[in-house]
Amino acid sequence: MERFERLKLTIAYDGRPFSGWQSQLNRNGVQDHLKEAFFEILSRPVIVHGAGRTDAGVHAFAQVAHVEVPNRKYALRTWMAALNAHLPGEIRVIKCGRVHGGFHAQYSAVGKVYTYRIWNDTFHHPLELGRSWHIAQSLDPNALRSAGDRFIGTHDFASFSANRRVAENTTRTIYYIRIQRRTELLTVQFAANGFLYRMVRMLMGSMAKVASGRKSVEWIDRLLSEPGKQKANFTAPPEGLYLLKVIY
Amino acid sequence: MERFERLKLTIAYDGRPFSGWQSQLNRNGVQDHLKEAFFEILSRPVIVHGAGRTDAGVHAFAQVAHVEVPNRKYALRTWMAALNAHLPGEIRVIKCGRVHGGFHAQYSAVGKVYTYRIWNDTFHHPLELGRSWHIAQSLDPNALRSAGDRFIGTHDFASFSANRRVAENTTRTIYYIRIQRRTELLTVQFAANGFLYRMVRMLMGSMAKVASGRKSVEWIDRLLSEPGKQKANFTAPPEGLYLLKVIY
Repeated sequence: MERFERLKLTIAYDGRPFSGWQSQLNRNGVQDHLKEAFFEILSRPVIVHGAGRTDAGVHAFAQVAHVEVPNRKYALRTWMAALNAHLPGEIRVIKCGRVHGGFHAQYSAVGKVYTYRIWNDTFHHPLELGRSWHIAQSLDPNALRSAGDRFIGTHDFASFSANRRVAENTTRTIYYIRIQRRTELLTVQFAANGFLYRMVRMLMGSMAKVASGRKSVEWIDRLLSEPGKQKANFTAPPEGLYLLKVIY
Repeated sequence: MERFERLKLTIAYDGRPFSGWQSQLNRNGVQDHLKEAFFEILSRPVIVHGAGRTDAGVHAFAQVAHVEVPNRKYALRTWMAALNAHLPGEIRVIKCGRVHGGFHAQYSAVGKVYTYRIWNDTFHHPLELGRSWHIAQSLDPNALRSAGDRFIGTHDFASFSANRRVAENTTRTIYYIRIQRRTELLTVQFAANGFLYRMVRMLMGSMAKVASGRKSVEWIDRLLSEPGKQKANFTAPPEGLYLLKVIY
């Protein structure tokens, strides 16, 4: 009887050349490239389970996936080298470990951390194209901070999700939102037990609207107090978003 | 009589899409794009004088150029906005000032600072492609430091230049070489009164050879003591190099 083992992969990617994490008909999802790399190595299909989807253009410092492979076929460093040899340079397996059969990249995750980068200056810096959101208007740091504070804690985030599945539980707990500014570069880190579809981009878009004076913090309070009644129709662009960490 | 004024431009660019700073027959030098932007605005050709050439793939945080334009035609911020509106996103004029007629971007410069970035890990990080030199072998920090120390001060760098002009003065003074390491990222900053053609890349290439144990520091001493007799045949790739500052 053939025996299997489960590998946990930590994956970094530049989101620009790909159609997001998830497998696509055009076979240009990051997941597709991983499946193809495994197929090249094993000559048979495998299922690559990711911790969660990232949209087209969203980057990852440490996406996580698991996959079942024939037991002890290769050493871990051989797996890493073989996978990276078959992947485009914009995707790299940066860690590879063995995990028990109960580990699941998505369902075992207890939290996620994302970082959003904003280039807040008259012009977008050439070395920041595709790496950050360019906002030319000045942003009020106090308004940004109080908008962010509204989201911290446990809330029903139905108004801050593009998902339309009705039965879904849309309550999440945000542990912290860390805001840092170094001259033109504004960095916002979001940590939560999980995020709904497009949620980080909608939180960020809403915070930016408040910081630029076009919406009030009370508008955020209303959206949170009547979940799903109205959507926060401001979605920050994908290129500023980075999946930083999946917590298990 | 038409009067002119001299503008000093500070320019940032991502080196990847261009054929280097200098005008090319393919019109894809950064200089070409600037000349075209001025032509679009003024409907006549101007000469764009740069502080120095950068090779294809080399980036700039602050290249400097000067140009003569009709006196007081536009406010400085209008010049910046108009130029940037006609430039590709990978080139941005980040500062624009008026200077006296004696100022020359190249000849008035008294020094330059470059930064070189090395990604020193088994695999090149996806978000570092085109932004750093990937070196997989481990680098000895002490050897790197002592190789760098050999270059500091005033030397004839003829062995560390790709230039073939015989009569050229190849003596330069290096003020400092600053080495910093943060996990996988190694950053080396070079400051000098000037650099010969490809000199920073050849210094960096030679330092890396010593740090990886393939050359001794005595090899550097020999190249410095017999200038031009032999060339240091190791040129670090352009994508790790950034023009950080021109000093006037």
